[in-house]
Amino acid sequence: MDTLNEQKLAHLIRSTRIAALATLHNGVPNLAMVAVAVEDDFSAFYIHVSRLGRHTRDMETDSRISLLLMETDDNRPDPQTLARLSLNGTADPVPRTDPHYERIRGLYLARFPEAGQFFGLGDFNLWQIRPREGRFVAGFAQAYHILPETLAKISAR
Amino acid sequence: MDTLNEQKLAHLIRSTRIAALATLHNGVPNLAMVAVAVEDDFSAFYIHVSRLGRHTRDMETDSRISLLLMETDDNRPDPQTLARLSLNGTADPVPRTDPHYERIRGLYLARFPEAGQFFGLGDFNLWQIRPREGRFVAGFAQAYHILPETLAKISAR
Repeated sequence: MDTLNEQKLAHLIRSTRIAALATLHNGVPNLAMVAVAVEDDFSAFYIHVSRLGRHTRDMETDSRISLLLMETDDNRPDPQTLARLSLNGTADPVPRTDPHYERIRGLYLARFPEAGQFFGLGDFNLWQIRPREGRFVAGFAQAYHILPETLAKISAR
Repeated sequence: MDTLNEQKLAHLIRSTRIAALATLHNGVPNLAMVAVAVEDDFSAFYIHVSRLGRHTRDMETDSRISLLLMETDDNRPDPQTLARLSLNGTADPVPRTDPHYERIRGLYLARFPEAGQFFGLGDFNLWQIRPREGRFVAGFAQAYHILPETLAKISAR
């Protein structure tokens, strides 16, 4: 990947607040929109979800998920040139006893201050999404296979 | 659903050009961005995809998919209030011999004129996504179960 596309990917990851989360629901794909915060080194994404959500119950049953970040559609003639990153990985709850819990909560709230009210509610929990591999499409016919080490490297851009 | 939310849903469906498509890939969810056109009566969504795409091969193996349309993030304080529609259904190719093929091709190209060049290529095909059920989140704590008849009714808004 050239430097320009590395910067494009870093920008996509840092600037995209909403993502599509795909879970397995009785063996079929289920989609939900989630608000995502990201670790500085791109090693993990964080979401804050209600136990009542179908996607949360899905993740409790099967941790294998997929996450998609898409560049905002700016109404250009060809939307296929929009950048997007799809990641496959696993989602696991961040227990309140986790030594990183407060730091992660702070990272999430720095991006979504309005979510503060839900941290007081018992049925909302932080989940951590760890990418295993993925695909970055920088534009038409520019696709790259992504590994955790790619993300770590790009996070320095 | 009240009239305002019906109009909001109709607007979301008519104005959203890109969507997240979740397929089953060896039993786990896989995500891709797709450009979507929609039937006037909201009975079907159309995508135009290459046979080389992982999502296409997934759909050839298992037609059960999920599609997510999200309102564009306008950087409001709380992105959880953005409207989104997730649909579960099936994806099937539209054969070139289908009596509706030319009409559907026209409908797709009306929205994505730049895609014309790919209709000449043998490995690109139109696929039809038929929603079976879904969920519309109009904003915080405003969620509605969606059926094909809901979509048909809303398409008149």
